[in-house]
Amino acid sequence: MEKTLRPVISVRIFREEKCFGPGVAALLKNIEEHHSLRSAAASMGMAYSKAWTILKASEEALGFKLLHTTTGGRHGGGAALTPEAQALLEAYYAYCAALKAAGKTLFEEHFREFL
Amino acid sequence: MEKTLRPVISVRIFREEKCFGPGVAALLKNIEEHHSLRSAAASMGMAYSKAWTILKASEEALGFKLLHTTTGGRHGGGAALTPEAQALLEAYYAYCAALKAAGKTLFEEHFREFL
Repeated sequence: MEKTLRPVISVRIFREEKCFGPGVAALLKNIEEHHSLRSAAASMGMAYSKAWTILKASEEALGFKLLHTTTGGRHGGGAALTPEAQALLEAYYAYCAALKAAGKTLFEEHFREFL
Repeated sequence: MEKTLRPVISVRIFREEKCFGPGVAALLKNIEEHHSLRSAAASMGMAYSKAWTILKASEEALGFKLLHTTTGGRHGGGAALTPEAQALLEAYYAYCAALKAAGKTLFEEHFREFL
């Protein structure tokens, strides 16, 4: 056995039910980049209908909109994140990064005998 | 929206590939209780063959045995965790608990505006 053990931590956010997680986060990040739900979904190999469904489910569970559609402008219209979605995405990734760092330190403490 | 947001953190342990996670951990915990792989699997509604497969895969990826079979004795024989499996299970649950506590504090910091 050459490589050492390492933790992989995944975070989902729940209210009463699941409302946000790595899938929706990646989708939002891609929408930010592509300015289009269709292109974002395609870039992830995800069906447009699936992307639309997970976005709507997340919006419903969160209680706020994640996307608004823009018309005209520099990108000729398309999809953009709402300010709430931008803040949520930023909070989610900052949280995951902080948790990963804490998780690495704690892993070295708890799995010392296995490393 | 009445209930507040909360994180659900899951931990899988990888070497080169996945070697341990919540499923195997729960199975080991049940084997400890039932002294039998068959009864442990049944108590989780898991097929015996599936329980056997995930245990073998975990042992292979970890590089050590998780179970040994006992004969006779107080429980009339059956399955028991190896000392390594006991130590791993203990480390895993202690780690998950510590990470959950750290994750709660970090969540309050990063998601303040959503709580």
